[in-house]
Amino acid sequence: MGVSLRDVAARAGVSVKTVSNVVNGSAPVSPHTREKVRRALAELGYRPNLSARSLRRGRTGVVALVLPGLDDPYFAELARLVTEAAAEHGWTVLIDQTGGRADRERQVLRGAGAQLADGLLLCPVTVGRRELADRTDATPLVLLGERVPGGTVPQVAVDDRRAAYEATGHLLSLGRTRVGVIGARGPRGPGAARRRLAGHRQALRDAGLPQDARLVPPTGTYRRAEGAAVLRRLLELDEPPQAVVCFDDLLALGALRAALSAGLRVPRDLALAGFGDIEDGRYSTPTLTTVSPDKAALARSAVALLAARIDGAPGGSGDSGAPAVVAGHRLLVRESTVGVAAAAGPDPVVPPQSSGAQSPGAQSSGSSTGAISS
Amino acid sequence: MGVSLRDVAARAGVSVKTVSNVVNGSAPVSPHTREKVRRALAELGYRPNLSARSLRRGRTGVVALVLPGLDDPYFAELARLVTEAAAEHGWTVLIDQTGGRADRERQVLRGAGAQLADGLLLCPVTVGRRELADRTDATPLVLLGERVPGGTVPQVAVDDRRAAYEATGHLLSLGRTRVGVIGARGPRGPGAARRRLAGHRQALRDAGLPQDARLVPPTGTYRRAEGAAVLRRLLELDEPPQAVVCFDDLLALGALRAALSAGLRVPRDLALAGFGDIEDGRYSTPTLTTVSPDKAALARSAVALLAARIDGAPGGSGDSGAPAVVAGHRLLVRESTVGVAAAAGPDPVVPPQSSGAQSPGAQSSGSSTGAISS
Repeated sequence: MGVSLRDVAARAGVSVKTVSNVVNGSAPVSPHTREKVRRALAELGYRPNLSARSLRRGRTGVVALVLPGLDDPYFAELARLVTEAAAEHGWTVLIDQTGGRADRERQVLRGAGAQLADGLLLCPVTVGRRELADRTDATPLVLLGERVPGGTVPQVAVDDRRAAYEATGHLLSLGRTRVGVIGARGPRGPGAARRRLAGHRQALRDAGLPQDARLVPPTGTYRRAEGAAVLRRLLELDEPPQAVVCFDDLLALGALRAALSAGLRVPRDLALAGFGDIEDGRYSTPTLTTVSPDKAALARSAVALLAARIDGAPGGSGDSGAPAVVAGHRLLVRESTVGVAAAAGPDPVVPPQSSGAQSPGAQSSGSSTGAISS
Repeated sequence: MGVSLRDVAARAGVSVKTVSNVVNGSAPVSPHTREKVRRALAELGYRPNLSARSLRRGRTGVVALVLPGLDDPYFAELARLVTEAAAEHGWTVLIDQTGGRADRERQVLRGAGAQLADGLLLCPVTVGRRELADRTDATPLVLLGERVPGGTVPQVAVDDRRAAYEATGHLLSLGRTRVGVIGARGPRGPGAARRRLAGHRQALRDAGLPQDARLVPPTGTYRRAEGAAVLRRLLELDEPPQAVVCFDDLLALGALRAALSAGLRVPRDLALAGFGDIEDGRYSTPTLTTVSPDKAALARSAVALLAARIDGAPGGSGDSGAPAVVAGHRLLVRESTVGVAAAAGPDPVVPPQSSGAQSPGAQSSGSSTGAISS
């Protein structure tokens, strides 16, 4: 701490401007002078000290993105997109992983880990209306990917209910009447899972089909291993499902592997659909039918809402009428539900950079904006 | 800024200790008092201000992990492990993504983005001896996953040359004499890729086989799409390879999809091996033979080296004789090289939490510590 460019300039016998040119690479400096400056910097242990400067004006230029875990490719991709959107506001993003644990999420709401952040983007798993109402920390907060009713915190999410309705509707349209669900989390689980389950059930009702609770086994973590384990349980039923909608691509990819290991042909014996459109599912064999949220729009909207909150910044949890943005989504129909011939031409591999782009032959539906159905 | 617990206590008409209990959840507080404190916190816009406290003692409690991108599951997993290892030192990890770009990596070496960090962990793609020698920023630095000769910066990596030697040796042991490479990056690419190529060539030499440059096409990014594109090029050769070693699992998974799309049977027509042991390759069909670096050891060693550098902290780039740690690795033999029957029993799916654990039936080799071969 405390070594200034002036100190370095004095030590090196050059101007402050020259030191600045070396440190910031802002203008060319002769090799001889450069080496003198470099030596002075090293001897004095110089470090740029923007943090103190930022603190003087009450901002650090850092926002925290709090999510369950970077191991999930969906959140890793979202983190990249948030980082890019935040960079346009001049922010650095600090990523904090909760493991989806309630105690860690509550700590975050109390301000732990936010000491250095101008604002918080939280992808919650356990946080609900009560936790938000109890919040004491005044750091500006935006919820990303989850909807908590009550209007106290700005939030951006896709229309989970409608998306699941479309996914199950697609499976029903293929003539599969016994449709299982992997990813139901029970009443204390995340609201997104509950809304997806409601959409699934609505699709069954609208098709005049019965609800069979055995086809909706409880699911723990959203990991490949859990998807494989729950699928094996479904296959042990007297009447196993003809199709399964998974509320996460990792669950679907685990289920796919377990189905293939069990000797099933996918989609002929079992059709599988996921949620999230991670790159993995564009390269699996078969490729994975999935709900593709507009992740870039999720990231951009969340950052824009946070910027507005930081600039306007009236208190934390006291105000009401906070904005709720609905990002669009599409159902990408691929081989895991319709087979190779129907899904695509000779090469079903999709270039990876076009996040949200459709496979050749994929069908799209439901890019919605407006109120979230509940 | 500037609202203290004392201010909040005065406003709420309670003791500072009571405010602290509410803010930190350190002791129970009656609902009535809790609500008074909560209202005072919201009205005053209180935020915990550990950053100023940290700066006074010259530490922020934050270390920066700089890596190419979180989109790569290998780096996402490494980021989680580094975050866990850092938490044991009481550090928060700020993650900065370079996209593998030389200009971004140089900015990091100049101290950009390190304003808030007590130290830097860098997973470099382009940084070499020259960039490290030119470094002006004195923030403690450790290289993770790359080896730069010269002894100026502490570093931890696996023995890339030996690992590639073993992977190619495994393919040769299956009777495949035409072995292609996906992931060669040319002389300006990362040193890890050059060392893997050297290991591959050594294995061919030791088996008395010729080097065929057509089997080693240049590879750009380490992404699934690139693996698929390069494999298609290899299949157009008059004499296509019988096996391919990929210097990254994403390349291998892209190549796998392209091979299956082209109607090849894997491993019968083409055996494929990767590098990195990402979870994806434990659930692909076929599962992926891969070099599994001891990622937990990489993370722990890197954090320990950084802790030593921060505590001891003599200058930045001036000192020499910095430690170089070699983390272990294993070759995990799975279905993509030996088929279903040879690779595993009835269920080849591996539980996901056991990072680095072997598949049933997988063979292990080469967990090395000691000097890095060069």
